[in-house]
Amino acid sequence: MTSDRIWTAALLVIGDEILSGRTQDKNIAQVAQWLNGEGIRLGEVRVVADREEAIVEAVNTLRARNDYLFTTGGIGPTHDDITVDAIAAAHGVSVVVHPAARAVLEKHYETRGGLTDARLRMARVPDGATLIENAMSGAPGIRLGNVFILAGVPHIAALMLQGLTGKLEGGHPMLSRTLGCWVPESEIADMLGATERAHAGCQIGSYPFFREGRVGANFVVRSTDAAGLDACVEDLAGRLAALGHTAVADGI
Amino acid sequence: MTSDRIWTAALLVIGDEILSGRTQDKNIAQVAQWLNGEGIRLGEVRVVADREEAIVEAVNTLRARNDYLFTTGGIGPTHDDITVDAIAAAHGVSVVVHPAARAVLEKHYETRGGLTDARLRMARVPDGATLIENAMSGAPGIRLGNVFILAGVPHIAALMLQGLTGKLEGGHPMLSRTLGCWVPESEIADMLGATERAHAGCQIGSYPFFREGRVGANFVVRSTDAAGLDACVEDLAGRLAALGHTAVADGI
Repeated sequence: MTSDRIWTAALLVIGDEILSGRTQDKNIAQVAQWLNGEGIRLGEVRVVADREEAIVEAVNTLRARNDYLFTTGGIGPTHDDITVDAIAAAHGVSVVVHPAARAVLEKHYETRGGLTDARLRMARVPDGATLIENAMSGAPGIRLGNVFILAGVPHIAALMLQGLTGKLEGGHPMLSRTLGCWVPESEIADMLGATERAHAGCQIGSYPFFREGRVGANFVVRSTDAAGLDACVEDLAGRLAALGHTAVADGI
Repeated sequence: MTSDRIWTAALLVIGDEILSGRTQDKNIAQVAQWLNGEGIRLGEVRVVADREEAIVEAVNTLRARNDYLFTTGGIGPTHDDITVDAIAAAHGVSVVVHPAARAVLEKHYETRGGLTDARLRMARVPDGATLIENAMSGAPGIRLGNVFILAGVPHIAALMLQGLTGKLEGGHPMLSRTLGCWVPESEIADMLGATERAHAGCQIGSYPFFREGRVGANFVVRSTDAAGLDACVEDLAGRLAALGHTAVADGI
Protein backbone atom coordinates (compact mmCIF):
# COMPACT_ATOMS: atom_id res chain seq x y z
CA MET A 1 0.00 0.00 0.00
CA THR A 2 1.41 3.35 -0.97
CA SER A 3 0.16 6.52 0.67
CA ASP A 4 -1.03 9.73 -0.97
CA ARG A 5 1.99 11.57 0.36
CA ILE A 6 4.17 12.99 -2.43
CA TRP A 7 7.81 11.99 -2.08
CA THR A 8 10.33 14.36 -3.61
CA ALA A 9 13.96 14.21 -4.59
CA ALA A 10 16.50 16.74 -5.76
CA LEU A 11 19.49 16.07 -7.98
CA LEU A 12 22.83 17.83 -7.68
CA VAL A 13 25.08 17.43 -10.73
CA ILE A 14 28.68 18.19 -9.77
CA GLY A 15 31.24 18.95 -12.43
CA ASP A 16 33.10 21.65 -14.34
CA GLU A 17 32.70 19.56 -17.52
CA ILE A 18 28.95 20.16 -17.57
CA LEU A 19 29.27 23.91 -16.92
CA SER A 20 31.97 24.30 -19.58
CA GLY A 21 29.72 22.70 -22.17
CA ARG A 22 32.28 19.97 -22.83
CA THR A 23 29.99 17.19 -21.66
CA GLN A 24 26.27 16.93 -22.41
CA ASP A 25 24.59 15.86 -19.17
CA LYS A 26 22.67 12.60 -19.33
CA ASN A 27 22.09 12.02 -15.63
CA ILE A 28 19.19 14.47 -15.20
CA ALA A 29 16.91 12.53 -17.57
CA GLN A 30 18.20 9.18 -16.33
CA VAL A 31 17.64 9.92 -12.63
CA ALA A 32 14.25 11.54 -13.40
CA GLN A 33 13.02 8.46 -15.25
CA TRP A 34 14.25 6.08 -12.55
CA LEU A 35 12.55 8.18 -9.84
CA ASN A 36 9.22 8.07 -11.74
CA GLY A 37 9.23 4.29 -11.40
CA GLU A 38 9.98 4.52 -7.68
CA GLY A 39 7.05 6.86 -7.01
CA ILE A 40 9.37 9.76 -6.21
CA ARG A 41 9.10 13.14 -7.91
CA LEU A 42 12.21 14.98 -9.09
CA GLY A 43 11.45 18.45 -7.77
CA GLU A 44 14.60 20.40 -8.62
CA VAL A 45 18.08 20.08 -10.09
CA ARG A 46 21.23 22.11 -9.62
CA VAL A 47 24.53 21.94 -11.46
CA VAL A 48 27.57 23.27 -9.59
CA ALA A 49 31.31 23.42 -10.24
CA ASP A 50 33.96 21.33 -8.51
CA ARG A 51 34.16 23.89 -5.67
CA GLU A 52 33.60 22.83 -2.07
CA GLU A 53 31.59 25.86 -0.94
CA ALA A 54 29.23 25.57 -3.92
CA ILE A 55 28.63 21.88 -3.23
CA VAL A 56 28.12 22.44 0.52
CA GLU A 57 25.55 25.18 -0.04
CA ALA A 58 23.56 23.13 -2.55
CA VAL A 59 23.71 19.91 -0.52
CA ASN A 60 22.47 21.55 2.66
CA THR A 61 19.63 23.41 0.93
CA LEU A 62 18.46 20.48 -1.16
CA ARG A 63 18.67 17.70 1.44
CA ALA A 64 16.70 19.79 3.93
CA ARG A 65 13.73 20.42 1.68
CA ASN A 66 13.45 17.11 -0.18
CA ASP A 67 12.97 13.54 0.98
CA TYR A 68 16.02 12.46 -0.97
CA LEU A 69 19.03 14.10 -2.57
CA PHE A 70 21.03 12.41 -5.31
CA THR A 71 24.40 13.68 -6.47
CA THR A 72 26.33 12.69 -9.59
CA GLY A 73 30.01 13.26 -10.33
CA GLY A 74 33.26 13.88 -8.52
CA ILE A 75 33.86 10.51 -6.84
CA GLY A 76 36.86 9.29 -8.84
CA PRO A 77 40.52 9.14 -7.80
CA THR A 78 41.80 12.48 -9.16
CA HIS A 79 42.40 15.90 -7.58
CA ASP A 80 39.19 17.34 -9.08
CA ASP A 81 37.06 14.67 -7.36
CA ILE A 82 36.02 16.49 -4.19
CA THR A 83 32.42 15.37 -3.75
CA VAL A 84 33.02 13.09 -0.74
CA ASP A 85 34.99 15.77 1.14
CA ALA A 86 32.39 18.43 0.35
CA ILE A 87 29.43 16.27 1.42
CA ALA A 88 31.22 15.32 4.63
CA ALA A 89 31.83 19.03 5.27
CA ALA A 90 28.16 19.77 4.59
CA HIS A 91 27.20 17.26 7.27
CA GLY A 92 29.94 18.34 9.69
CA VAL A 93 31.52 14.86 9.74
CA SER A 94 35.02 13.67 8.91
CA VAL A 95 36.10 11.50 5.99
CA VAL A 96 37.10 7.89 6.72
CA VAL A 97 38.18 4.89 4.67
CA HIS A 98 35.25 2.47 4.52
CA PRO A 99 36.51 -1.09 5.19
CA ALA A 100 34.07 -2.77 2.79
CA ALA A 101 34.81 -0.23 0.05
CA ARG A 102 38.50 -0.84 0.60
CA ALA A 103 37.94 -4.60 0.27
CA VAL A 104 35.94 -4.13 -2.96
CA LEU A 105 38.73 -2.00 -4.43
CA GLU A 106 41.46 -4.43 -3.31
CA LYS A 107 39.68 -7.24 -5.09
CA HIS A 108 38.98 -5.11 -8.20
CA TYR A 109 42.60 -3.97 -8.54
CA GLU A 110 44.16 -7.34 -7.54
CA THR A 111 44.85 -8.14 -11.18
CA ARG A 112 45.10 -4.49 -12.26
CA GLY A 113 48.27 -3.31 -10.56
CA GLY A 114 47.16 -3.25 -6.92
CA LEU A 115 45.54 -0.68 -4.64
CA THR A 116 47.57 2.53 -4.85
CA ASP A 117 47.02 5.61 -2.66
CA ALA A 118 45.14 7.31 -5.50
CA ARG A 119 42.83 4.32 -5.91
CA LEU A 120 42.29 4.15 -2.16
CA ARG A 121 40.80 7.67 -2.44
CA MET A 122 37.76 5.94 -3.92
CA ALA A 123 37.19 4.07 -0.63
CA ARG A 124 36.89 7.35 1.30
CA VAL A 125 33.38 8.12 2.59
CA PRO A 126 31.80 10.61 5.00
CA ASP A 127 31.83 9.09 8.50
CA GLY A 128 28.60 7.15 9.04
CA ALA A 129 27.97 6.42 5.36
CA THR A 130 26.95 3.08 3.86
CA LEU A 131 27.77 1.76 0.40
CA ILE A 132 25.57 1.49 -2.69
CA GLU A 133 26.30 -1.70 -4.57
CA ASN A 134 27.80 -1.40 -8.03
CA ALA A 135 28.34 -4.72 -9.75
CA MET A 136 30.52 -3.52 -12.57
CA SER A 137 33.01 -0.90 -11.42
CA GLY A 138 35.21 -1.15 -8.36
CA ALA A 139 34.01 2.18 -7.02
CA PRO A 140 30.81 1.91 -4.95
CA GLY A 141 28.19 4.63 -4.55
CA ILE A 142 27.65 6.08 -1.10
CA ARG A 143 24.61 6.75 1.07
CA LEU A 144 24.72 9.23 3.96
CA GLY A 145 21.31 9.79 5.54
CA ASN A 146 19.01 10.93 2.73
CA VAL A 147 21.91 11.76 0.40
CA PHE A 148 22.87 9.31 -2.35
CA ILE A 149 26.26 9.89 -3.96
CA LEU A 150 26.47 8.44 -7.49
CA ALA A 151 29.13 8.33 -10.18
CA GLY A 152 29.16 10.93 -12.95
CA VAL A 153 29.71 8.43 -15.78
CA PRO A 154 26.10 7.71 -16.82
CA HIS A 155 26.33 3.94 -17.20
CA ILE A 156 27.95 3.55 -13.77
CA ALA A 157 25.33 5.85 -12.22
CA ALA A 158 22.72 3.59 -13.87
CA LEU A 159 24.19 0.51 -12.16
CA MET A 160 24.08 2.27 -8.80
CA LEU A 161 20.44 3.28 -9.36
CA GLN A 162 19.69 -0.34 -10.26
CA GLY A 163 21.14 -1.32 -6.89
CA LEU A 164 18.65 1.06 -5.21
CA THR A 165 15.55 -0.04 -7.14
CA GLY A 166 12.68 -0.89 -4.82
CA LYS A 167 14.65 0.09 -1.72
CA LEU A 168 13.47 3.67 -1.14
CA GLU A 169 10.07 4.58 0.21
CA GLY A 170 7.94 6.35 -2.39
CA GLY A 171 4.31 7.12 -3.15
CA HIS A 172 2.08 6.44 -6.11
CA PRO A 173 4.17 6.39 -9.30
CA MET A 174 3.53 9.32 -11.62
CA LEU A 175 1.67 8.09 -14.69
CA SER A 176 1.63 9.87 -18.02
CA ARG A 177 -0.04 9.61 -21.41
CA THR A 178 0.70 11.66 -24.49
CA LEU A 179 -1.50 12.88 -27.32
CA GLY A 180 0.06 14.40 -30.41
CA CYS A 181 -1.62 16.75 -32.84
CA TRP A 182 -0.63 18.63 -36.01
CA VAL A 183 -1.86 21.95 -34.66
CA PRO A 184 -0.06 25.14 -33.61
CA GLU A 185 -0.33 25.14 -29.81
CA SER A 186 -1.36 28.80 -29.90
CA GLU A 187 -4.59 27.75 -31.66
CA ILE A 188 -5.79 25.49 -28.87
CA ALA A 189 -4.12 27.14 -25.86
CA ASP A 190 -7.35 28.29 -24.19
CA MET A 191 -8.95 24.86 -24.57
CA LEU A 192 -5.86 23.18 -23.07
CA GLY A 193 -5.98 25.36 -19.97
CA ALA A 194 -9.71 24.76 -19.58
CA THR A 195 -9.22 21.00 -19.91
CA GLU A 196 -6.57 20.99 -17.19
CA ARG A 197 -8.79 23.04 -14.87
CA ALA A 198 -11.64 20.53 -15.43
CA HIS A 199 -9.50 17.60 -14.23
CA ALA A 200 -8.14 18.12 -10.72
CA GLY A 201 -5.00 16.10 -10.07
CA CYS A 202 -3.97 16.13 -13.74
CA GLN A 203 -1.35 18.37 -15.31
CA ILE A 204 -1.15 18.96 -19.05
CA GLY A 205 2.15 19.99 -20.58
CA SER A 206 2.27 21.30 -24.14
CA TYR A 207 5.43 20.71 -26.17
CA PRO A 208 5.46 22.29 -29.64
CA PHE A 209 7.63 21.01 -32.47
CA PHE A 210 8.46 21.83 -36.08
CA ARG A 211 8.80 18.79 -38.32
CA GLU A 212 8.44 18.01 -42.01
CA GLY A 213 7.77 21.70 -42.56
CA ARG A 214 4.70 21.61 -40.30
CA VAL A 215 4.04 22.65 -36.72
CA GLY A 216 2.45 20.44 -34.11
CA ALA A 217 2.53 19.75 -30.42
CA ASN A 218 2.56 16.86 -28.00
CA PHE A 219 0.32 17.14 -24.97
CA VAL A 220 1.59 15.19 -21.98
CA VAL A 221 -1.02 14.48 -19.33
CA ARG A 222 0.36 13.43 -15.92
CA SER A 223 -1.37 12.17 -12.81
CA THR A 224 -0.86 9.61 -10.05
CA ASP A 225 -4.49 8.49 -10.56
CA ALA A 226 -4.94 6.08 -13.50
CA ALA A 227 -8.70 6.58 -13.90
CA GLY A 228 -8.40 10.35 -13.66
CA LEU A 229 -5.60 10.30 -16.21
CA ASP A 230 -7.66 8.28 -18.70
CA ALA A 231 -10.66 10.57 -18.27
CA CYS A 232 -8.54 13.66 -18.90
CA VAL A 233 -6.92 12.17 -22.00
CA GLU A 234 -10.31 11.14 -23.40
CA ASP A 235 -11.74 14.61 -22.72
CA LEU A 236 -8.75 16.26 -24.38
CA ALA A 237 -9.06 14.07 -27.49
CA GLY A 238 -12.78 14.94 -27.66
CA ARG A 239 -12.14 18.66 -27.35
CA LEU A 240 -9.46 18.51 -30.06
CA ALA A 241 -11.90 16.65 -32.34
CA ALA A 242 -14.59 19.25 -31.65
CA LEU A 243 -12.15 21.89 -32.95
CA GLY A 244 -11.48 19.82 -36.08
CA HIS A 245 -8.15 18.27 -35.00
CA THR A 246 -7.24 14.59 -34.84
CA ALA A 247 -5.33 13.46 -31.76
CA VAL A 248 -2.59 10.86 -32.27
CA ALA A 249 -2.28 8.37 -29.41
CA ASP A 250 1.18 8.13 -27.81
CA GLY A 251 2.24 11.38 -29.42
CA ILE A 252 3.90 12.39 -32.67
CA MET B 1 40.88 45.32 -24.52
CA THR B 2 39.27 42.90 -22.12
CA SER B 3 39.94 43.14 -18.41
CA ASP B 4 41.05 40.40 -16.03
CA ARG B 5 37.68 40.51 -14.29
CA ILE B 6 35.82 37.20 -14.49
CA TRP B 7 32.27 37.59 -15.79
CA THR B 8 29.81 34.96 -14.66
CA ALA B 9 26.38 33.80 -15.74
CA ALA B 10 23.81 31.43 -14.32
CA LEU B 11 21.26 29.44 -16.29
CA LEU B 12 17.76 28.64 -15.08
CA VAL B 13 16.03 25.87 -17.02
CA ILE B 14 12.28 26.07 -16.49
CA GLY B 15 10.07 23.11 -17.28
CA ASP B 16 8.29 20.06 -15.93
CA GLU B 17 9.33 18.14 -19.05
CA ILE B 18 12.99 18.19 -17.97
CA LEU B 19 12.22 17.14 -14.39
CA SER B 20 9.93 14.32 -15.55
CA GLY B 21 12.68 12.89 -17.74
CA ARG B 22 10.49 13.25 -20.84
CA THR B 23 12.86 15.69 -22.50
CA GLN B 24 16.63 15.49 -22.50
CA ASP B 25 17.91 19.02 -21.85
CA LYS B 26 20.14 20.44 -24.57
CA ASN B 27 20.22 24.07 -23.47
CA ILE B 28 22.78 23.69 -20.67
CA ALA B 29 25.55 22.59 -23.05
CA GLN B 30 24.41 25.03 -25.74
CA VAL B 31 24.35 28.08 -23.46
CA ALA B 32 27.65 27.01 -21.83
CA GLN B 33 29.42 26.79 -25.17
CA TRP B 34 28.03 30.12 -26.37
CA LEU B 35 29.10 31.82 -23.12
CA ASN B 36 32.67 30.47 -23.52
CA GLY B 37 32.96 32.38 -26.77
CA GLU B 38 31.66 35.57 -25.14
CA GLY B 39 34.25 35.43 -22.32
CA ILE B 40 31.56 34.70 -19.74
CA ARG B 41 31.76 31.74 -17.37
CA LEU B 42 28.70 29.60 -16.65
CA GLY B 43 28.92 29.35 -12.87
CA GLU B 44 25.77 27.45 -11.94
CA VAL B 45 22.59 25.97 -13.35
CA ARG B 46 19.22 25.23 -11.81
CA VAL B 47 16.25 23.33 -13.20
CA VAL B 48 12.87 24.14 -11.68
CA ALA B 49 9.27 23.15 -12.37
CA ASP B 50 6.60 25.36 -13.92
CA ARG B 51 5.75 26.81 -10.48
CA GLU B 52 5.86 30.54 -9.85
CA GLU B 53 7.39 30.44 -6.36
CA ALA B 54 10.19 28.10 -7.49
CA ILE B 55 11.01 30.37 -10.45
CA VAL B 56 10.92 33.54 -8.32
CA GLU B 57 13.27 32.09 -5.70
CA ALA B 58 15.79 30.90 -8.29
CA VAL B 59 15.65 34.11 -10.37
CA ASN B 60 16.25 36.37 -7.40
CA THR B 61 19.12 34.28 -6.01
CA LEU B 62 20.86 33.77 -9.34
CA ARG B 63 20.53 37.29 -10.80
CA ALA B 64 21.92 38.80 -7.60
CA ARG B 65 25.11 36.78 -7.53
CA ASN B 66 25.96 36.57 -11.23
CA ASP B 67 26.61 39.20 -13.88
CA TYR B 68 23.98 37.62 -16.11
CA LEU B 69 21.10 35.20 -15.74
CA PHE B 70 19.70 33.27 -18.69
CA THR B 71 16.43 31.37 -18.53
CA THR B 72 15.08 28.82 -21.00
CA GLY B 73 11.53 27.55 -21.32
CA GLY B 74 8.00 28.61 -20.51
CA ILE B 75 7.49 31.52 -22.93
CA GLY B 76 4.94 29.94 -25.29
CA PRO B 77 1.20 30.63 -25.51
CA THR B 78 -0.19 27.84 -23.29
CA HIS B 79 -1.31 27.73 -19.66
CA ASP B 80 1.95 26.07 -18.50
CA ASP B 81 4.01 28.97 -19.88
CA ILE B 82 4.40 31.14 -16.78
CA THR B 83 7.99 32.34 -17.07
CA VAL B 84 7.16 35.97 -17.95
CA ASP B 85 4.70 36.33 -15.06
CA ALA B 86 7.13 34.71 -12.62
CA ILE B 87 10.08 36.87 -13.67
CA ALA B 88 7.93 40.00 -13.46
CA ALA B 89 6.89 38.92 -9.95
CA ALA B 90 10.55 38.31 -9.02
CA HIS B 91 11.33 41.92 -10.03
CA GLY B 92 8.16 43.35 -8.47
CA VAL B 93 6.93 44.77 -11.79
CA SER B 94 3.73 44.20 -13.72
CA VAL B 95 3.30 42.41 -17.04
CA VAL B 96 2.55 44.53 -20.11
CA VAL B 97 2.06 43.89 -23.82
CA HIS B 98 5.20 45.07 -25.62
CA PRO B 99 4.19 47.09 -28.72
CA ALA B 100 7.10 45.89 -30.86
CA ALA B 101 6.53 42.25 -29.83
CA ARG B 102 2.87 42.68 -30.70
CA ALA B 103 3.83 44.05 -34.11
CA VAL B 104 6.23 41.14 -34.74
CA LEU B 105 3.49 38.64 -33.86
CA GLU B 106 0.87 40.45 -35.96
CA LYS B 107 3.15 40.21 -38.96
CA HIS B 108 4.08 36.57 -38.25
CA TYR B 109 0.44 35.45 -37.91
CA GLU B 110 -0.90 37.65 -40.72
CA THR B 111 -0.97 34.65 -43.09
CA ARG B 112 -1.41 32.08 -40.29
CA GLY B 113 -4.89 32.81 -38.97
CA GLY B 114 -4.33 36.16 -37.24
CA LEU B 115 -3.30 37.26 -33.77
CA THR B 116 -5.57 35.49 -31.26
CA ASP B 117 -5.63 36.17 -27.52
CA ALA B 118 -3.52 33.07 -26.88
CA ARG B 119 -0.91 34.20 -29.40
CA LEU B 120 -0.93 37.70 -27.93
CA ARG B 121 0.26 36.07 -24.67
CA MET B 122 3.64 35.75 -26.39
CA ALA B 123 3.89 39.57 -26.61
CA ARG B 124 3.59 39.92 -22.83
CA VAL B 125 6.78 41.06 -21.09
CA PRO B 126 7.74 42.30 -17.63
CA ASP B 127 7.35 46.11 -17.55
CA GLY B 128 10.64 47.73 -18.58
CA ALA B 129 11.86 44.80 -20.66
CA THR B 130 13.40 44.99 -24.12
CA LEU B 131 13.21 42.37 -26.88
CA ILE B 132 15.86 39.90 -28.07
CA GLU B 133 15.72 39.52 -31.81
CA ASN B 134 14.70 36.16 -33.22
CA ALA B 135 14.73 35.99 -36.97
CA MET B 136 12.88 32.73 -37.39
CA SER B 137 10.01 32.41 -34.95
CA GLY B 138 7.44 35.08 -34.24
CA ALA B 139 8.13 34.94 -30.50
CA PRO B 140 11.00 37.20 -29.41
CA GLY B 141 13.26 36.63 -26.41
CA ILE B 142 13.15 39.17 -23.60
CA ARG B 143 15.77 41.11 -21.64
CA LEU B 144 15.01 42.62 -18.25
CA GLY B 145 18.06 44.13 -16.58
CA ASN B 146 20.63 41.34 -16.37
CA VAL B 147 18.05 38.60 -17.03
CA PHE B 148 17.73 37.10 -20.52
CA ILE B 149 14.58 35.09 -21.17
CA LEU B 150 15.02 32.53 -23.96
CA ALA B 151 12.81 29.90 -25.57
CA GLY B 152 12.96 26.29 -24.39
CA VAL B 153 13.07 24.77 -27.87
CA PRO B 154 16.86 24.49 -28.42
CA HIS B 155 17.03 25.75 -32.00
CA ILE B 156 14.96 28.84 -31.16
CA ALA B 157 17.10 29.48 -28.08
CA ALA B 158 20.13 29.22 -30.40
CA LEU B 159 18.72 31.93 -32.67
CA MET B 160 18.15 34.20 -29.69
CA LEU B 161 21.74 33.62 -28.48
CA GLN B 162 22.95 34.44 -31.98
CA GLY B 163 21.11 37.76 -31.69
CA LEU B 164 23.08 38.48 -28.50
CA THR B 165 26.52 37.49 -29.82
CA GLY B 166 29.08 40.21 -29.20
CA LYS B 167 26.61 42.41 -27.34
CA LEU B 168 27.34 41.49 -23.70
CA GLU B 169 30.41 42.63 -21.82
CA GLY B 170 32.72 39.74 -20.99
CA GLY B 171 36.33 39.04 -20.07
CA HIS B 172 39.03 36.89 -21.60
CA PRO B 173 37.44 33.85 -23.27
CA MET B 174 38.16 30.56 -21.52
CA LEU B 175 40.56 28.52 -23.63
CA SER B 176 40.92 24.76 -23.40
CA ARG B 177 43.09 21.98 -24.80
CA THR B 178 42.62 18.26 -24.36
CA LEU B 179 45.10 15.39 -24.12
CA GLY B 180 43.85 11.82 -24.26
CA CYS B 181 45.66 8.78 -22.91
CA TRP B 182 44.99 5.04 -22.69
CA VAL B 183 45.69 4.93 -18.95
CA PRO B 184 43.45 4.35 -15.92
CA GLU B 185 43.17 7.79 -14.30
CA SER B 186 43.86 6.23 -10.90
CA GLU B 187 47.41 5.41 -12.10
CA ILE B 188 48.38 8.99 -12.80
CA ALA B 189 46.14 10.82 -10.31
CA ASP B 190 48.98 12.15 -8.12
CA MET B 191 50.91 13.43 -11.12
CA LEU B 192 47.82 15.21 -12.46
CA GLY B 193 47.28 17.05 -9.19
CA ALA B 194 50.97 18.02 -9.03
CA THR B 195 50.87 19.30 -12.62
CA GLU B 196 47.86 21.49 -11.89
CA ARG B 197 49.54 22.91 -8.78
CA ALA B 198 52.65 23.75 -10.84
CA HIS B 199 50.63 25.89 -13.29
CA ALA B 200 48.74 28.69 -11.57
CA GLY B 201 45.73 29.84 -13.56
CA CYS B 202 45.24 26.43 -15.20
CA GLN B 203 42.67 23.82 -14.24
CA ILE B 204 42.97 20.18 -15.27
CA GLY B 205 39.85 18.05 -15.45
CA SER B 206 40.14 14.28 -15.78
CA TYR B 207 37.37 12.41 -17.61
CA PRO B 208 37.70 8.62 -17.65
CA PHE B 209 36.09 6.42 -20.28
CA PHE B 210 35.72 2.75 -21.17
CA ARG B 211 36.02 2.01 -24.89
CA GLU B 212 36.97 -0.92 -27.07
CA GLY B 213 37.39 -2.94 -23.87
CA ARG B 214 40.08 -0.59 -22.55
CA VAL B 215 40.10 2.24 -20.05
CA GLY B 216 41.49 5.67 -20.72
CA ALA B 217 40.95 9.28 -19.82
CA ASN B 218 40.82 12.69 -21.42
CA PHE B 219 42.56 15.50 -19.57
CA VAL B 220 41.06 18.91 -20.27
CA VAL B 221 43.30 21.85 -19.43
CA ARG B 222 41.55 25.22 -19.17
CA SER B 223 42.90 28.73 -18.76
CA THR B 224 42.23 32.25 -19.96
CA ASP B 225 45.98 32.63 -20.68
CA ALA B 226 47.07 31.06 -23.98
CA ALA B 227 50.79 30.84 -23.17
CA GLY B 228 50.13 29.38 -19.71
CA LEU B 229 47.75 26.86 -21.24
CA ASP B 230 50.32 25.70 -23.79
CA ALA B 231 53.00 25.38 -21.11
CA CYS B 232 50.72 23.29 -18.91
CA VAL B 233 49.72 20.97 -21.77
CA GLU B 234 53.37 20.51 -22.78
CA ASP B 235 54.35 19.76 -19.18
CA LEU B 236 51.50 17.27 -18.81
CA ALA B 237 52.46 15.45 -22.03
CA GLY B 238 56.06 15.25 -20.78
CA ARG B 239 55.05 13.88 -17.39
CA LEU B 240 52.81 11.27 -19.06
CA ALA B 241 55.71 10.25 -21.32
CA ALA B 242 58.03 9.99 -18.30
CA LEU B 243 55.57 7.47 -16.81
CA GLY B 244 55.54 5.50 -20.07
CA HIS B 245 52.27 6.81 -21.50
CA THR B 246 51.68 8.45 -24.88
CA ALA B 247 49.46 11.52 -24.89
CA VAL B 248 47.08 11.92 -27.84
CA ALA B 249 46.60 15.54 -28.94
CA ASP B 250 42.95 16.77 -28.99
CA GLY B 251 41.83 13.81 -26.89
CA ILE B 252 40.59 10.30 -27.58
